[in-house]
Amino acid sequence: MTMIPQTYPYKYLHEYATAVLLKFGFSDEHAKLCATVFMAAELRGIPSHGIMRLNDFYPLLASGRMNVNPEFRIEHKTPSTALLDGDNTIGILPAHRGMQIAIEKAEHAGTGWVAVSNSSNFGITGYFAMMALEHDMIGFACTNTTPLVTPTFGIASMLGTNPIAVAVPTGKQPPFVADFATTPVTRGKVSIYEKEGEKMGFGFVEDAEGNPSDDPTVLNRGGHMLPLGGDREHGGHKGYCLGAIVDILSGVLSGANFGQFVPPMLALPLYDEQQGKGCGHFFGAMRIDAFSDSETFKGRMDKWIETMRNTKPAKGHDSVLIPGDPERECEERIAREGIRLLPQVMEESCAIAEKLGINFKKI
Amino acid sequence: MTMIPQTYPYKYLHEYATAVLLKFGFSDEHAKLCATVFMAAELRGIPSHGIMRLNDFYPLLASGRMNVNPEFRIEHKTPSTALLDGDNTIGILPAHRGMQIAIEKAEHAGTGWVAVSNSSNFGITGYFAMMALEHDMIGFACTNTTPLVTPTFGIASMLGTNPIAVAVPTGKQPPFVADFATTPVTRGKVSIYEKEGEKMGFGFVEDAEGNPSDDPTVLNRGGHMLPLGGDREHGGHKGYCLGAIVDILSGVLSGANFGQFVPPMLALPLYDEQQGKGCGHFFGAMRIDAFSDSETFKGRMDKWIETMRNTKPAKGHDSVLIPGDPERECEERIAREGIRLLPQVMEESCAIAEKLGINFKKI
Repeated sequence: MTMIPQTYPYKYLHEYATAVLLKFGFSDEHAKLCATVFMAAELRGIPSHGIMRLNDFYPLLASGRMNVNPEFRIEHKTPSTALLDGDNTIGILPAHRGMQIAIEKAEHAGTGWVAVSNSSNFGITGYFAMMALEHDMIGFACTNTTPLVTPTFGIASMLGTNPIAVAVPTGKQPPFVADFATTPVTRGKVSIYEKEGEKMGFGFVEDAEGNPSDDPTVLNRGGHMLPLGGDREHGGHKGYCLGAIVDILSGVLSGANFGQFVPPMLALPLYDEQQGKGCGHFFGAMRIDAFSDSETFKGRMDKWIETMRNTKPAKGHDSVLIPGDPERECEERIAREGIRLLPQVMEESCAIAEKLGINFKKI
Repeated sequence: MTMIPQTYPYKYLHEYATAVLLKFGFSDEHAKLCATVFMAAELRGIPSHGIMRLNDFYPLLASGRMNVNPEFRIEHKTPSTALLDGDNTIGILPAHRGMQIAIEKAEHAGTGWVAVSNSSNFGITGYFAMMALEHDMIGFACTNTTPLVTPTFGIASMLGTNPIAVAVPTGKQPPFVADFATTPVTRGKVSIYEKEGEKMGFGFVEDAEGNPSDDPTVLNRGGHMLPLGGDREHGGHKGYCLGAIVDILSGVLSGANFGQFVPPMLALPLYDEQQGKGCGHFFGAMRIDAFSDSETFKGRMDKWIETMRNTKPAKGHDSVLIPGDPERECEERIAREGIRLLPQVMEESCAIAEKLGINFKKI
C-alpha cells in the first residue's frame, strides 16, 4: 500500500485508539471494538465521529465519569424484543450488544427489536444497521442526541439531530445503506460554516426569536436548528415528526432521557432535571426470509438499484445517488490513501498520548 | 347535533359509500370497513382520501378490474412476521387485515410485522397505525404509491410520495400520531395550486430538465416532485432515502411492484413491465410492555407531550405543533359541523348513485 503524505495508515490510528481505551481499563475486546467503530467513521468520510470523538470522550474518561467495565443487563424481554441497560459507558459498546441481541432474536422470531438506555454517543448510526447485512437481515438503528432542533412552531431546542440508519442486503449490487440525521445538515456542518466565518444559506437555522437566519453563529445566541424539510411550508413538520419518533423509540421507550433532557453529548455537568438514564438507542433486525425467499429478494433489490442507476441523471451529475454509494466509495479511497486528521485532532491526540504515556507521532 | 348548511352528516355519507360497495358485490363487512376508512379521511381533514377516492375507484370497479370477494392468503410466516397477498381489491381491506395480523403477532411475540403485496390504494396511512393504540402498542404503517418523485441527482419520477405513519399510546394526553408523505407536500396540494392557476414557491417541483420551478403544471410536462428536504443542499437526499426505505419494505420485500413500476393508482392500462403484483404496504405493531411497563411508558409519553406543549411558541402561534393534534381537532370539529364535499365530488357522487340506483342528494 502506497500512503500519500500526511496521512495515517488505518492500523496506526486503530492502535492509538485501542491504546487510549486500554489505559483507562477497558477490556481488550471493548477497546478494539470502540476503535473499530471510530475508524469506520474515518473511513466512511464522517471524521466528526472518528478519532475526534474519541478525544472528546477523554475528559469524561479522565474524570472517571464513565464506566470502563460495563455489564449489559437485559431488563425485559419477549421473543422479539429486549430492553438493555447500557451501564453508563461509551455508547458504542451497548449499541453493539443491542444490535447483536436484535439479530439473535430475529434468528428465532423473524425480527428482533432492542431499546437501550443509560448510554452515551455511539458514533456512526450506519455501523450498527450494517451489522445485520451478513445475516441476510434488514438492519435498523437510531439514537436520540443532544437537543438542538426546534419543534414546528417552536423557538426552543427540544430534540437532537436524531439520526436513523437502515441497511438492506442485496445480491450483486453493494448493499443499500441509508444513514442520515433528521435535520437538513448535521451540527458539525453548521460548525464548519461558523469556523470559516461564512453564511450558510437559509433553511438550516433560526435565531432565538424564530426569525429565518443564514448565520451559523445564532446557535451560540439562543438560536436553534430546523428539522429536515425546513419551515412548515416545506414540510419541516415531517422532519420534526421523524426526530420525535426517534426520540420516542430511543428515549421514552427505553427509559433513557428524552427531548430537552438528553444530556449534552460530552459536557459536564448534567442537567438538573433528568427523565431517565443517559441517552438511548433503538435497534432492529428483520430476517429477509421471514417474509420471502432471500435470493429472490436480493435479486429484486439488485433490480431496484440498477433501475435507479440507469435513470437519466440531472445535468452535472454522472448518476443518480444510491444510498450507501458515497460512503462506500469514500471507504475504498481512504483505505487506499490513508487517513488525514485535522491539525487540531492531531494536536489533541498528541497531548492525550503524552498524558497517558503512549506513542503518537504528529505528521 | 346541529348541522351547518351545505354539509352532510357522517352517517349519510357512510351509508352512500357502503351502498356503492354493496352494489358491486362486496360483503357487508368489507363495504362498511371501506366506508369507515374513507370517512376517517373526511373527518381528519384529508378529503383527497375520502369520498373522492371512493369515486376514483368507481371505474375500476365498474370495469371489473378489482376483486370484490377477496380472500387474504398468508404466504409466509414466522412468530413475528407474515407476508399477505392482497388479492387485488381495494387496498383498505388487505391493509386492515395486515395490521390485524401484526397486532396478533405482537400479542405473542412482542412485535408483529406484515408485508402486503397485490394491493391498491389504502386511503389514509394513519388509520392503520392507529389500530395499534387500543392494544397498548406502537403502530407503524407505510405504503408505496404511483411514481412522482425524483431520486437525488435524477430527473425522473421513480418513487411515490410514499407515506409513513407512526402512532404511540399515551396516558392523559391524546395519542401521538404522525402521518406524513415523504415529500414536502402531497400530490393533491400541487394539484390545488394548479387548479387555482397559482405559483407554489420553490422547493417542491422541478421541470423535466431538473431546473428549479415554482410552476405546478411542470408535472404535466415531464417534471417531477422533490423528496422531503428539497434539493441536495437542504437534505433532499434524506427524504429520498425515506421514500426508498418505504418502497423497499412495501414493494421489494412484499413481492409487489416497486419504484417506477408501481401501477398508477387508478388509471388503466397497467404498465407493460411489472416487477410484482399491484402496490405494496408494510405494517408493524410493538407491544409497549414488550419493552417496559405500559403505565410507566404512558406517563413518560404524557411528559414528552406536555414538555413540548409548554415550550414557548414562535410569534403568531399559540403553541408548538404536537403530531396528531391538527387531525384530532379537525375530527372533533367536522363530526360536530358535518362534512362539506367539493362541488365536483358531489356531482360525481350523484352520477354514480344514479347509475347504481341508490340515493344521493345534492345539497
